[in-house]
Order: sequence, then structure tokens, then C-alpha cells
Amino acid sequence: MSSAAPLDDLLDFLRFASISTEPAYREPTARCADWVAAKFRAMNLETAVHATPGHPVVVARTSRDPHKRTVLIYGHYDVQPVDPIELWTNPPFEPTIASGFVTARGATDNKGQILAHMRGVEDLLSENAGGLPVNVVFLVEGEEEIGSTHLPQFLADHSTDLACDIVVVSDTGMVGPGQPTFTYGLRGLAALEVELTGPAMDLHSGMFGGAVLNPIAALARLAAGCHDDDGRIVVNDFFNNVQPLQDWEREAWRNLPLNEQRLLEMTGAPALRPEPGYTPFESIAARPTIEFNGVLGGYTGEGTKTVLPSKASTKITCRLVPNQDPAQVAAALQRHFEKHAPPAVSLTIRHGHGAKPYATDPHSGFGVAAQQALEQTWGRPAALVREGGSIPIVQTFRDVLGVDTLLLGLALPDCRAHSPNETFPLENLEKGIALNKALLREIASA
Amino acid sequence: MSSAAPLDDLLDFLRFASISTEPAYREPTARCADWVAAKFRAMNLETAVHATPGHPVVVARTSRDPHKRTVLIYGHYDVQPVDPIELWTNPPFEPTIASGFVTARGATDNKGQILAHMRGVEDLLSENAGGLPVNVVFLVEGEEEIGSTHLPQFLADHSTDLACDIVVVSDTGMVGPGQPTFTYGLRGLAALEVELTGPAMDLHSGMFGGAVLNPIAALARLAAGCHDDDGRIVVNDFFNNVQPLQDWEREAWRNLPLNEQRLLEMTGAPALRPEPGYTPFESIAARPTIEFNGVLGGYTGEGTKTVLPSKASTKITCRLVPNQDPAQVAAALQRHFEKHAPPAVSLTIRHGHGAKPYATDPHSGFGVAAQQALEQTWGRPAALVREGGSIPIVQTFRDVLGVDTLLLGLALPDCRAHSPNETFPLENLEKGIALNKALLREIASA
Repeated sequence: MSSAAPLDDLLDFLRFASISTEPAYREPTARCADWVAAKFRAMNLETAVHATPGHPVVVARTSRDPHKRTVLIYGHYDVQPVDPIELWTNPPFEPTIASGFVTARGATDNKGQILAHMRGVEDLLSENAGGLPVNVVFLVEGEEEIGSTHLPQFLADHSTDLACDIVVVSDTGMVGPGQPTFTYGLRGLAALEVELTGPAMDLHSGMFGGAVLNPIAALARLAAGCHDDDGRIVVNDFFNNVQPLQDWEREAWRNLPLNEQRLLEMTGAPALRPEPGYTPFESIAARPTIEFNGVLGGYTGEGTKTVLPSKASTKITCRLVPNQDPAQVAAALQRHFEKHAPPAVSLTIRHGHGAKPYATDPHSGFGVAAQQALEQTWGRPAALVREGGSIPIVQTFRDVLGVDTLLLGLALPDCRAHSPNETFPLENLEKGIALNKALLREIASA
Repeated sequence: MSSAAPLDDLLDFLRFASISTEPAYREPTARCADWVAAKFRAMNLETAVHATPGHPVVVARTSRDPHKRTVLIYGHYDVQPVDPIELWTNPPFEPTIASGFVTARGATDNKGQILAHMRGVEDLLSENAGGLPVNVVFLVEGEEEIGSTHLPQFLADHSTDLACDIVVVSDTGMVGPGQPTFTYGLRGLAALEVELTGPAMDLHSGMFGGAVLNPIAALARLAAGCHDDDGRIVVNDFFNNVQPLQDWEREAWRNLPLNEQRLLEMTGAPALRPEPGYTPFESIAARPTIEFNGVLGGYTGEGTKTVLPSKASTKITCRLVPNQDPAQVAAALQRHFEKHAPPAVSLTIRHGHGAKPYATDPHSGFGVAAQQALEQTWGRPAALVREGGSIPIVQTFRDVLGVDTLLLGLALPDCRAHSPNETFPLENLEKGIALNKALLREIASA
């Protein structure tokens, strides 16, 4: 089997504008799935592109040897939207390379990372005439950035074919360059959109201002009422079932490179504002949030328009920690807004996708195997962390397939996932390939 | 002199997309000024189109008889933007007529109203071989909707030519159909834009949420902090110099047709929310406001984007009452935001245009003349009101030309000035022409 260099594959992969949330990008998203499938077919894997009501799922597998363990490697080929587009230094789907990094939308989340696994398996296959030490199933979906809408049903429908002993996902991060990282927990997600309507139309602020409540002002009060002055969430029932941060976690996280100074550099924020009583890292890893992702109301064009607007709305996502439940948190927020919305506006709440938070035992057999593979690859012990992001499907793997997931991130903290100028270190493409090979061997003997 | 019917003139006038705030509409705005000038020239008035650094000013006059009083009639040919365009039932610059109303952007604010004066003078000129009972100067500008940016300098530069005994403006409203209305006060305006910047870029809300303050949340707290739970403004120094509502005003306004029920019908709001201790009408006419005209931050497109945004901003205009000062109010708001903005965001404030509030004595000689003309035209006594809108230039007439302004509105409360489907009653075009003729006679003999 001859093949392009891994970097050439990555550049090809990144040229697809596979933005799953925007209907206008349906066609390049579909072409991206086909490209992934073609790669698997070139590796002689049994490959299928499964249509869903949304974007397709690509499944590829080695022939199943019943005497070997089976590893399911999960990733996604879809990416986040690109706006604000004006902040990109190059077009987001024309990858550029500089200083050892490739810059493009999806470079780190998740194309660089899933490609490392694909190329690792390809290497192992070409090096071992007897096949891999484990059975491998690849599951690469196109809806991760929109909550993996159709994947749970797909898993349920294909649970026999997808049966496995362990899932491997590289969609998390390393806490610093060269620091291998094993992630044993993830935050979940609850999404909702809140819209307030006051007057039936935008009004002249002179003719009516003073007698009619401004929906932007009303929304500001509702939004501000979610936190106290110090940033603590004050929504009733929000913290139900939150698992307290453990002492050993505080200790393990005390000297991580992702400290306050590093977070300030990475974000460019004037100051950090963690939850009172928690470090910035602890606030990200182990505490829930209410995040306003967007707000819109009234006149936002050039110049001044003296309107009292009809509507104002905000998009909200909460990050959840074990053992919060997305539906219960969304319901708590809904009750909060319904209780506090004044009678002079009408309130509409739309619930979006949810994801349960995830935690696994880092000291299980597969957990130890993962840490050994990480240490072999980077030459130093792996850090044990929880991560603030959400990979909704990980909980579904547990629910539907009955297995845990090993989270072995290849992203660096400043890879700017979801932001302009997203990057991926080329070194981690190579390390990721090596990690995949070590990991499959360690899992075989775990 | 032959002329088109007034309605045909109005339809022609309304077809110009003379949106002064949007640079893309500079050319139709200029053509609209030329159309106004052509109308004056057809009346044999001495007419000039004066260029300014912004939009042109049209000045037209009868020959000056030193034995007659001089009346300056002011209006504007520029209009507000049209968005949200999707709420219009017809294209905003293709006027349509139904049920005795013409619908188009600018129909009431101000094209229908200034045209009534133009046609009134035209009628008087054709009816009176000896000329008008007063000297008339028309001043029709193109920047009223953007704060009459260049008009104060223009007035100062042409104060001799524009010298007059009284100014007449029809850019206000009648409190109900068939109810002649004399407006003796207007609110002023202070505008500012507040932008908060947290992180240098939009961040992944999972990777950083919890450690970094969300600028939308910060803006919500700042905005919410402008009012208390009941809607009272709580910004320090905001109420400095506010002239209390007088008992006779409360009495005069008690039974106006613009009551709570009517305001609910007109606005479609679920409930009104006047300032505590004031009726809705009093809150509009005699109390200042802080209005959020627009708010924008983060992701506002389709679907979900789990970002922690870099920026959030809001456009604010305050309506002011006698004797507040726009610069002092803007400074008070700036101090408020500077005091309360948390260190985890940086604050940028831009000040916009301001306008002093206005009040005159309704019982002066010219005031009585105006009320007599109103009563003659509609056959019933004029209501005496203050109005919530702002006509910034009225204060400038007082400052530069040393004269008061008679505000004789022809708009109805539901004419939807500044809103989609702005309308003007055709009856008021005819009544406005008659009012102009009666008024010039009354002023001559006052």
C-alpha cells in the first residue's frame, strides 16, 4: 500500500468546509465524509458511509478476530463555524503552515487528531503482515459540533456491529506542549435560547420610551440574575447533584502548566474571573457554568437608531459536571427565567441539545494501558485531568455499548479550537500516530 | 401657477430613499433635496441648496417685507432606516394608499408634515396677489435623523439671512385623531455606545468557560444596573436638574386620548411599565429614560456555537427632560459604567450626538396664535402637551436665532414613525395645508 505523507492528507482533509451547523455547507460536509471513507478503503478496511437524517456517519473496520480485543476509535469530520471571519489571518479552509503549526478550521478539532489514529492504524497494518494486535472499528461522524444529533440512534441501530471492549477518542487536549495527558472526565452541556418580546414592533423611543419596557433591559436583568456579583451561579436547583471536587484532584492539578499566567496569555483577557473558592483550572475542569454564547436585539447597524426594540434574545449553553443532568439543568434555568420575567415582556424558551457530563476511573486496566502508551510516546508520565469541554457521545458509548472511553488528547491549550486561526502542531500529528500504535499494543496486553 | 395635487407631490417625495444615517443612501438623499428645491422654485421662492459636510440644506424664502413678521418653517427630508425590512407590508419607498392612509418610510416623519406647509404657502401665494401676511423662510434639512449634525453651524453662518420672529415645526404628533395638539415641550437626547472586551478572541466555552468572564454576562450586569427592579433609573447624578412635573400638567393630561388602553393597542406590548409614580403618558412626556436601542455579542447565527465571546456591545440613547444637559447625562452614565465594569473586561465608551430638552410658554402671544389656528382648523380647542421625542434643532433655534418654536404636529400616535409600515393620514395633509394658512394669518395679527 502506498500513501501520501500524513501532512498532505491533513491538508486535503482541512480543505473541506464541513461546517455541520450551517445548512449552506451541507455539500462540502458530505464530500468530506466521502474523503474519509476513501482513505479507509485505501487501507483495505471494510468501509461504509451511512446516511442519517443529518450528516453521514463513516464506519470502517478490520476483519473481526474473536480472539482479539476490539477497540472503537471515534472522531468527527465536522467543524465549527468560522465567524468572526475577519479575525482569520488566512482563509479558514485554505490551510497554511508556519513554525511547525498548521492553521485552518478543524485543524485540532478534530481533523488533525482523528487523522493521527487513521495513519497510526495504516502504519501498523503495513508493518504487520499478521494484522493488528486488536480489532479496530473507526466511527467518524459529522455532527459532533451540533450535539451528535443522530449518533445515539445510529449506535443503537448498529450496537452489534459496533460492539467493542473500549472506545478511544482524541478530541481533548494536552495541558502543555510535550506533557502527555490522560483525561478522565468531561463536562456536559445544556443548551437553550431565550427570547423576550415586548412591543409588537420596534417603537420610536421618544414616542413610547418610558411607558414600555425595553426587552433588552429586561433580558439584561434576567441574564444578570443568573450570577451574583462575584460570578457565583444563583439559579435555584442549578447545583443539584454536583459532585464536589476531590482533594486528590486539587493536589494532582496544583502544578499543571495550565496555570493562571498561561491562561491569561492564551485568552488575552484583562484578568481571569474563576468561581470564588476555585482556581481557574478547577473552575474549568470541575465546576459548571452558564455561558451566554450570543446576544442580539434592536438596531446593531451603523450609526444611531432611536428605537425601543420589539425583541431581544440570547443563546445560552451551560457546561455541566458529574452528576448534573442536562434536562434538569435546562428546566432549572427555564423556571428561573419564567419566575423572573416581568409581565411587560413575553418569554419564549427553546431547548437545544444536551450532553451528560462524563467521568471514568483513571486507574482501571485500560486506563493504565492508556497512561503507559502516553508515557512511551512522550517519555514522561501522563498528567491526569478532567477537561472543561463536552464530548456528548462518550456518555452514549457507555449507555448503548456499555463501555468506557479513553480520552487521549493531542490538542495544545492554545490551539484555538472554535476560535479564529485554529491550529494544530505538526509534531502532534507524528506523536499521535506513534501513540495510536503504542496504545493498540498496550490495550492488547492489558 | 399650476401644480400637481398635494397627494401626487407626497407620493413623489416618499419615493426617495433618503436614509441619512446609511452612507449607501447618499445619492437618493441628495436627489430628494433637489426635488424639494425644485418644488420651492416652482412656487417662485428664492431657493438655494446649500452643501454641508453631510447632507445638503434647502433654504427658500419669499421676498422680505420689513413691515411684516418673519416665520421660519423648518422640516427635514431625511428618514430613518427601514429595518427590520421583513416586517413591511410594502417596500418602504414604494408608497401605497389604503383606508385614507399613505404607507411609506418618512410618510409622517417628516415628509407628509413639511409638505403640508409647502402646499399651504403655495395655496396662499396663489390666492393672494398681494403676497403672504408674513415673510416666510423654509429651512428643510437632511440630517434630522442623525442629530442635525451640521445644522447648528449652518444656522450660525446664516443667522442674518435666517433671522425671524418665530419658528414653526410640524414634526410632532396629535394626541388622537381630530384632536388638535400644541406641543410646548420636547425631550432631549444623549447617545452613547458601550463595548466590553474580555478575551482577545472568541473562546471555546468548554476549554475556558468558568475561568474567563463572559462579556455578555458583564454587559448584562452593567445594563441591568441602570435601573432598579421597578424600572427606576439608579445612575448617580442622572436626575440632576430634572424639572418636576407640574400639577397643572398632570391635570391637563389626565383625560387625553393617549391613555393606557390606547398605548397598549398601539404598541402591542403585553403590559405597560411606566416609571413608578407616573402615568404612562407622564412617563413619556415628562420623565427621562435610558433606552437600549440595540445589543450585539457573540454568535447570533443559525444553530448553536459554544463560544465564550470576545466582545459585547450596546447602543444607548437617553431621552432627557428640562433641564437636563446631554453632556452631563452622558458623563454620568460613563462614570456609572466605569465604576461598575469589572476588571476582567475592558470598557470602551463612544459618545454620540446629544440634544437639549426643550420647553416654551404655551401662553405667550405666538403660543396663543398657534392654538387659535389649531382650533380654527379642527373646530375644537387644542390639547396642550409635552412630547417624548426630540427635535434637537429647536433648542438651537433658541440659542442661535433667539426665537421660540411653535410645534404643531400632524402625526397620529399610531403613525409608526421609526417603525415598519410608517403611515400618514391623508386627511392631515389637507388639514395641515389649512392649518398653515390659518397660522400665518394668526401670526401676522398676534
